[in-house]
Amino acid sequence: MSKTIKKIAVLTSGGDSPGMNAAIRSVVRTCAYHQIECVGIYRGYQGMIEGDFIPMGPRTVHNIINKGGTILKSARSKEFMTSEGRKKAYDQLQKAGVEGFVVIGGDGSFTGAEIFNKEFQFPVMGIPGTIDNDIFGTSHTLGYDTALNTVIDCIDKIRDTASSHNRLFFVEVMGRDAGHIALNAGIGGGAEEILIPEEELGLERLLESLKKSKASGKSSSIVVIAEGDKIGKNVFELKDYVEANLPEYEIRVSVLGHMQRGGAPSCYDRVLASRLGVKAVECLLEGKSNFMVGMLNDKVTITPLLQAIKGESEIDRELLRVAEIMSV
Amino acid sequence: MSKTIKKIAVLTSGGDSPGMNAAIRSVVRTCAYHQIECVGIYRGYQGMIEGDFIPMGPRTVHNIINKGGTILKSARSKEFMTSEGRKKAYDQLQKAGVEGFVVIGGDGSFTGAEIFNKEFQFPVMGIPGTIDNDIFGTSHTLGYDTALNTVIDCIDKIRDTASSHNRLFFVEVMGRDAGHIALNAGIGGGAEEILIPEEELGLERLLESLKKSKASGKSSSIVVIAEGDKIGKNVFELKDYVEANLPEYEIRVSVLGHMQRGGAPSCYDRVLASRLGVKAVECLLEGKSNFMVGMLNDKVTITPLLQAIKGESEIDRELLRVAEIMSV
Amino acid sequence: MSKTIKKIAVLTSGGDSPGMNAAIRSVVRTCAYHQIECVGIYRGYQGMIEGDFIPMGPRTVHNIINKGGTILKSARSKEFMTSEGRKKAYDQLQKAGVEGFVVIGGDGSFTGAEIFNKEFQFPVMGIPGTIDNDIFGTSHTLGYDTALNTVIDCIDKIRDTASSHNRLFFVEVMGRDAGHIALNAGIGGGAEEILIPEEELGLERLLESLKKSKASGKSSSIVVIAEGDKIGKNVFELKDYVEANLPEYEIRVSVLGHMQRGGAPSCYDRVLASRLGVKAVECLLEGKSNFMVGMLNDKVTITPLLQAIKGESEIDRELLRVAEIMSV
Amino acid sequence: MSKTIKKIAVLTSGGDSPGMNAAIRSVVRTCAYHQIECVGIYRGYQGMIEGDFIPMGPRTVHNIINKGGTILKSARSKEFMTSEGRKKAYDQLQKAGVEGFVVIGGDGSFTGAEIFNKEFQFPVMGIPGTIDNDIFGTSHTLGYDTALNTVIDCIDKIRDTASSHNRLFFVEVMGRDAGHIALNAGIGGGAEEILIPEEELGLERLLESLKKSKASGKSSSIVVIAEGDKIGKNVFELKDYVEANLPEYEIRVSVLGHMQRGGAPSCYDRVLASRLGVKAVECLLEGKSNFMVGMLNDKVTITPLLQAIKGESEIDRELLRVAEIMSV
Repeated sequence: MSKTIKKIAVLTSGGDSPGMNAAIRSVVRTCAYHQIECVGIYRGYQGMIEGDFIPMGPRTVHNIINKGGTILKSARSKEFMTSEGRKKAYDQLQKAGVEGFVVIGGDGSFTGAEIFNKEFQFPVMGIPGTIDNDIFGTSHTLGYDTALNTVIDCIDKIRDTASSHNRLFFVEVMGRDAGHIALNAGIGGGAEEILIPEEELGLERLLESLKKSKASGKSSSIVVIAEGDKIGKNVFELKDYVEANLPEYEIRVSVLGHMQRGGAPSCYDRVLASRLGVKAVECLLEGKSNFMVGMLNDKVTITPLLQAIKGESEIDRELLRVAEIMSV
Repeated sequence: MSKTIKKIAVLTSGGDSPGMNAAIRSVVRTCAYHQIECVGIYRGYQGMIEGDFIPMGPRTVHNIINKGGTILKSARSKEFMTSEGRKKAYDQLQKAGVEGFVVIGGDGSFTGAEIFNKEFQFPVMGIPGTIDNDIFGTSHTLGYDTALNTVIDCIDKIRDTASSHNRLFFVEVMGRDAGHIALNAGIGGGAEEILIPEEELGLERLLESLKKSKASGKSSSIVVIAEGDKIGKNVFELKDYVEANLPEYEIRVSVLGHMQRGGAPSCYDRVLASRLGVKAVECLLEGKSNFMVGMLNDKVTITPLLQAIKGESEIDRELLRVAEIMSV
Repeated sequence: MSKTIKKIAVLTSGGDSPGMNAAIRSVVRTCAYHQIECVGIYRGYQGMIEGDFIPMGPRTVHNIINKGGTILKSARSKEFMTSEGRKKAYDQLQKAGVEGFVVIGGDGSFTGAEIFNKEFQFPVMGIPGTIDNDIFGTSHTLGYDTALNTVIDCIDKIRDTASSHNRLFFVEVMGRDAGHIALNAGIGGGAEEILIPEEELGLERLLESLKKSKASGKSSSIVVIAEGDKIGKNVFELKDYVEANLPEYEIRVSVLGHMQRGGAPSCYDRVLASRLGVKAVECLLEGKSNFMVGMLNDKVTITPLLQAIKGESEIDRELLRVAEIMSV
Repeated sequence: MSKTIKKIAVLTSGGDSPGMNAAIRSVVRTCAYHQIECVGIYRGYQGMIEGDFIPMGPRTVHNIINKGGTILKSARSKEFMTSEGRKKAYDQLQKAGVEGFVVIGGDGSFTGAEIFNKEFQFPVMGIPGTIDNDIFGTSHTLGYDTALNTVIDCIDKIRDTASSHNRLFFVEVMGRDAGHIALNAGIGGGAEEILIPEEELGLERLLESLKKSKASGKSSSIVVIAEGDKIGKNVFELKDYVEANLPEYEIRVSVLGHMQRGGAPSCYDRVLASRLGVKAVECLLEGKSNFMVGMLNDKVTITPLLQAIKGESEIDRELLRVAEIMSV
């Protein structure tokens, strides 16, 4: 491995997700393993612009593999969207002797990295970190598996208390544009209905289904709803609509919100973070740049950043069928 | 112990709570220990009216101590509020040879039992089962401790992701009339502000406090809000109001809902359930009736049902002071 | 889909694992979806021999998706290893009108199914259920992902308290012949050393590594040890050996044991179970037999039972390298 | 409140326990609330001797309420047991302007504080922090409630898999001299037998009980064993003994170990820590010294340190009876 690169930076950007700390740890330790320097950048691209750097070694990432959030903080930076902002960032990296960076984040963060790479021929690598799993080129993004477990833990608790007659529970989960969480956590939670952005279920079909569900002897039902579902109503409007049309049901709503972004990462997310961090650093050391690392077919792979940004992470249509069969 | 009573019934009534199954198990096994019969009544007083009974022995309550919900189901019964309904229930109990019952539930359930006892001189005992902890005569109701742990687990996850600037998180918890959950889980979750029904905090004071909180260097804050808080706005109206007045804050809302009523009971709730079940049965065997069993001063005690119904379970005012100090 | 088959049986066999109930539920509901009958067989092959069957419909598998263990119980059957035993089992299935079965279990259970299929041309399908992940033809067995999360949860707790000087923690995990759990949970738990059956680390190297670990500034270390590691000592003998050679260390031992086989299944395991159950039933309906369903390359696949039995499920060697880098 | 004291120190000492961080946070914030200074002392009394101090303000204890372990580290100090060591510690405190300290720990830590107070008339207060709950003068020590929940979570998982025939599970829990954990977690976990140091159950009675348990139709049993039980065998010797005498049983052992000391504290422990921290600081400000703060009869109380050290924290004998009834 040609170690032309002597110093690598790592940053987290955009919304945080469980596993980001494990990925930071992996980048830092892989640098140490290959005896190159590593600096952490606080607050994403904004911290890059402001030169908010900190040297990191194997001991500074001690005991963070199991922590949610990100010790480097995260932020969105409008300034980095301007060429002036990016020039400042470049100057800061130059001043600090940084010769490549690994950004952990989502689509937006990758777009920034991709432009930066083009403008300054600066080596960059991306690690997909978002609970939404809406990134092309990887079967799993960091935090997705953890978020699924958080959601089903909530649904399990609701199920415990769902024994009374005629109760309907609406659980709103994250996923403004992507139904991965709702679909998988809906199946995993044993939901009777799942509403996702990718599918036009239609209100009529939902009502039909709820009627049928009741006729089949179910005394209570749980409906998982992605916040960005196609029906175009928020969960409380949906509650009003269904109660107006199915007066025999009393509906209770849970809005899970940001708890889905926190918590100790699952084992899957930690191992994934560890693997992707190793790969990202070693790509830079091998002279590769402008790729996102990910998992495909159970193997660590790389995908050009541009492709990762432009491609679509589609839901597995087979799961729609599984969901339908399971709610028979 | 005079065993004039030969058969005892047990039922769960009203909203369910974690620990009810553990209490059912305890009643059943205490009966077996004293070699008297035990029957379970399904669906609360409604099942009593309909004679929906099942004989229960030590093995039928195997492996339920750790389960949320109630294997006997629970329901509210309008019919039991009429003297005709209660007469039917009495006839069913007579027919089945039941000579006393233990009801696990809240205020409403105890009121039913108290009236029934008066009307038919029928031996009854109450076990306080509700997550709200709003029952006089016991420091803890079944499920309260579990609910607190559920809430702080959610708040912990939100805290993980609360590192970005200027974020405010509103977490709505249960407690329509009582702030026990909000106050204790607010302290336990490290909330910056806690809004409870018992206190007129006032919107102005909330705004002041949030401004001060920010000035003191906190980049994010978590506010725990009981669903029945005195401010008279629901959590989304509150969000709109605060955002209008403190435009520098972006507010995210979580509505925990019924997950607070589910989940495996905590060790405290299981031990409590076991102790109260023993006491309830042994009171009946000793000829006592019309009491609620509870914990006071770390000891199992009994309180006349009427007193338990009429008394008020006040929040510990000292905790308001602790909460204030903790959010310095 | 030709529905020549009218009745399918499902059983769990061998050691249980989280997700088995979710798989039972899936088999039952898929049968219902395709309007064919389904019977559950209690206690594995022994129950098959004894005709311990129960008809199952969509509602009988209500609320089991989140339960550990198996509602059908599991057992090992010596009698089924004899041709007399298998003949009895065949007669029972015939008598009950069962025309194919799905067995959820491991290698041993598949071997039984494979022989049975040969002897009686009886349609069988296998679903891999074991926490050890030691089955060829699938990237994940049911329960493996859950067990990993259970183990890292324990390691996280140990890590909390590992702050004092010179403490060494040995954590023994399951895996008599396969190091999947130790390797992945070791990486996920941030263990300093991982001992697995597949690798001859050697005691000398362990001692070296622990010395180096200390020299590098780590005040405490966690070592994850598979019960079947190559060193040939049990965890307490290993403790004595290391303490004798590295007297500066005080060693504390945790033996996790069977808790690794229990607990609510993770979302991954529940979705996996749901998908595999659908596939297993639909294979039988399509006239396929003698296959194991599994996940490979993120897709549901089938593998001939014989191949699944004879093949080896190797650990991912790349993970050994990741583990080494992470403990730098 | 007379604020003659201007600066208070806080330290954690002895074995750590969940809730220690919450108590540190409370001490620090209560100081800030009363506008006095606060310093943290690292590594217990050893750090006091070495002057390993750090100034602490409300923001330095941000986000630690939910963390296991102790951010101030803990250690045992032989030097502090000598008068020379204590003199050094006193000089360090004087140099730093510290006028009183709060020590969070167990019996040993209190003994040190008590002697120190006598020798130098130095104001000290103790907060009981240990999972064992073996301290006189408080119904709960910090970490005890959390440890109970950790143990029953493990037992629940074991129970899931305990469905096969003739399996016996031995679970060893902490408690060298005190059976509080074993007794309460045994009841909460639904254990069939509980072995604690305070009771001479005797091996014969254990064998009898296991035989009876089986005869009563239980197919599997869980036995919770405190590490310091009176039988004088370790858990593996006990396994060998029982298997030799009851060959029909196959015994599986779990040794939970230090995981019992870690984990996010329960809500109870966090609220307790917050209350005790406030009281400890305010006692010092009121000129009180040499007391332990604790909870008795649901109220915060103070007990002279000497009494806390010499008194015995007995198990609640009523619970032995409850345990017996529950395993009917």
